[in-house]
Amino acid sequence: MKYEELLYKLNKIGIALSKERNYEVLLEKILTEARSFTRAEGGSLYIREGQELLFLVSQNDKLPENKGLRGLRIPLSSNSIAGYVGMTGELINIEDVYKLPEGTPYKINLSFDQENNYRTHSMLLVPLQESGDQPIGVLALINAKNIAGEATSFDPRYEPLVHSLASQAAVALRNAQLHGELKDAYLDTIFRLSRAAECRDMDTANHLERISLYSTILAEEMGMSPKFVENIRYASPMHDVGKLGVPDSILLKPGKLTDEEFNEMKNHTIFGAKILSDACSEIITISEEIALTHHERFNGKGYPNGISGEDIPLSGRIVALADVFDALASKRCYKDAWSIENVVAHIKKESGQHFDPKVVEAFENCLERILKVREEYSIHKAQSI
Amino acid sequence: MKYEELLYKLNKIGIALSKERNYEVLLEKILTEARSFTRAEGGSLYIREGQELLFLVSQNDKLPENKGLRGLRIPLSSNSIAGYVGMTGELINIEDVYKLPEGTPYKINLSFDQENNYRTHSMLLVPLQESGDQPIGVLALINAKNIAGEATSFDPRYEPLVHSLASQAAVALRNAQLHGELKDAYLDTIFRLSRAAECRDMDTANHLERISLYSTILAEEMGMSPKFVENIRYASPMHDVGKLGVPDSILLKPGKLTDEEFNEMKNHTIFGAKILSDACSEIITISEEIALTHHERFNGKGYPNGISGEDIPLSGRIVALADVFDALASKRCYKDAWSIENVVAHIKKESGQHFDPKVVEAFENCLERILKVREEYSIHKAQSI
Repeated sequence: MKYEELLYKLNKIGIALSKERNYEVLLEKILTEARSFTRAEGGSLYIREGQELLFLVSQNDKLPENKGLRGLRIPLSSNSIAGYVGMTGELINIEDVYKLPEGTPYKINLSFDQENNYRTHSMLLVPLQESGDQPIGVLALINAKNIAGEATSFDPRYEPLVHSLASQAAVALRNAQLHGELKDAYLDTIFRLSRAAECRDMDTANHLERISLYSTILAEEMGMSPKFVENIRYASPMHDVGKLGVPDSILLKPGKLTDEEFNEMKNHTIFGAKILSDACSEIITISEEIALTHHERFNGKGYPNGISGEDIPLSGRIVALADVFDALASKRCYKDAWSIENVVAHIKKESGQHFDPKVVEAFENCLERILKVREEYSIHKAQSI
Repeated sequence: MKYEELLYKLNKIGIALSKERNYEVLLEKILTEARSFTRAEGGSLYIREGQELLFLVSQNDKLPENKGLRGLRIPLSSNSIAGYVGMTGELINIEDVYKLPEGTPYKINLSFDQENNYRTHSMLLVPLQESGDQPIGVLALINAKNIAGEATSFDPRYEPLVHSLASQAAVALRNAQLHGELKDAYLDTIFRLSRAAECRDMDTANHLERISLYSTILAEEMGMSPKFVENIRYASPMHDVGKLGVPDSILLKPGKLTDEEFNEMKNHTIFGAKILSDACSEIITISEEIALTHHERFNGKGYPNGISGEDIPLSGRIVALADVFDALASKRCYKDAWSIENVVAHIKKESGQHFDPKVVEAFENCLERILKVREEYSIHKAQSI
């Protein structure tokens, strides 16, 4: 391939990498693109964590996929070639790893070849590095092939190009990571503040995490867009913030509420929607919708507005089911948890009455995933606030 | 410059653009890089909003900076050349805008030249566009110069390169925008949920926005890092979430609290820290620190732990001052707002007692900005929840 064409290709790869915001997908994409660019039979990607490299992705046309190595840790040191590149930031191009010249400043571990009955010949190792910074990882490419598919060495002309690709990859990884961290922090904040709001009635523990995940699973099962799924995941934990507007005397009352008290309790839907009103962000707008409508019923017998069918936003119809499922399937101070059989029977019976039949259908189809979440978020992660 | 060198340069620009996460800085950088790449005397950048282009940045080596045009709206139509490019996604390279051939499908408005006594010769217009998508904006480059600095036309060889640069720019803009939107949504959520929590004692209205901005300004004035400044901006609104753990009977009591009640009230610091404990995100960790320590005093006479001096985290020392300033300078149901002179005198008197002298010094230096925030967040943006 002509050098100009390679440079063009490099540009295209750069754009494709910066477009990808999913960290895991990005890791695979970097390795795939780098291998196709250099015509390498295999390769691996390591990300630095402190003074170690974390082995994350490996690809090889000749070997079956091997995820077993994922998470393996290699110290930054000259005891391995990847560790050496991560430590020094040098690019290393080796013609044959079995014929290293005298005085090579790093060691090569060939146990991988022995264990997999594989023969590594050429290697090209590049630091993943924004200009001037410490490497954030290492890209290792193995066994260059010429156009005829025969083993060859990595053309030194590739070196600056692969260096540039690795910089682009480092920036893209950093962006995806920052974006992911911000999302995680956001979600964590929503949970903490919403949980704090709900914890005045101490029934909750992991209630909100479960509602969020149940709603996410239901939306996925119904084939909703990734955007909708993400929005409902973030928005659903805020469905009951309006309870902040309900006085302690009603919210924490041990016995049965009077009609008047129950009416005031119902206002948490309206108060919640008010707290979340007039937002620019989609997540808050959807949480407003959910706060207002998650006690409506498909047959029109819910509150606060008694709307029915598809007049109730889909988000509200989904959270309605998730909320009731969780209430019935959990122990509360005034009742035991129902058996799953009874809960499922109740929800099926309420299809078209309390619940949207389409949501009930999705619920039946993804019951297994829902029960897994229930399991996970009732024992291991119990919170004590 | 050789074509290969141009391709290299393009790669470097691509990496630099994807690194920039600040939207405003990025806009300027795209135009600067594109002008330097094509040796253009001037240029402008438009971003699409619905069926219009928003004029955002303009640069010209021969003209004084003109921010007056910022925000000007141009419809997507053939009535202007930028509107035409935004509508069709075509790249347009014109040798002389005063000699357009017959049948040109767009009009050119030359009033800019007349008003500024400027002569536009060549123009190169490129859609800002991720491959296949609708353009998100238009990049317009004006008056190409050769190495000697003489007017020339844009070399057609540049076209695919500038096209590639524009794709890279589009991706970077989209990333910066998404990141910005996520941050805005996050901040909005923190305000709404924290405000809801505080609103049980209806004194607050814009209290939290003001605390957040006062703390931000103080941290900036003290020369803290941008990261610290951003963290305190996000974390400070959560300083009183622990009030959720204080019963209505104490929180909403009209008269003076008994000693016992006051002790229970003080626990909102501990309860708040508990709500925010053991987080992975920096923002929440700092908000935990603030929740716990914003009632400590520099002389050790505060609560809950009676720590003093620099044992109190800086974030807590800053929010302590911001919180007291706001309480004194605002009207509450049981008191009028103090005059600013009295508030400032009180804070200066408490330097080294209640407050860290360094924070008091910063406060005096940035009083003007603080008063501007106070002004802005007490009248115009009053909230009613």
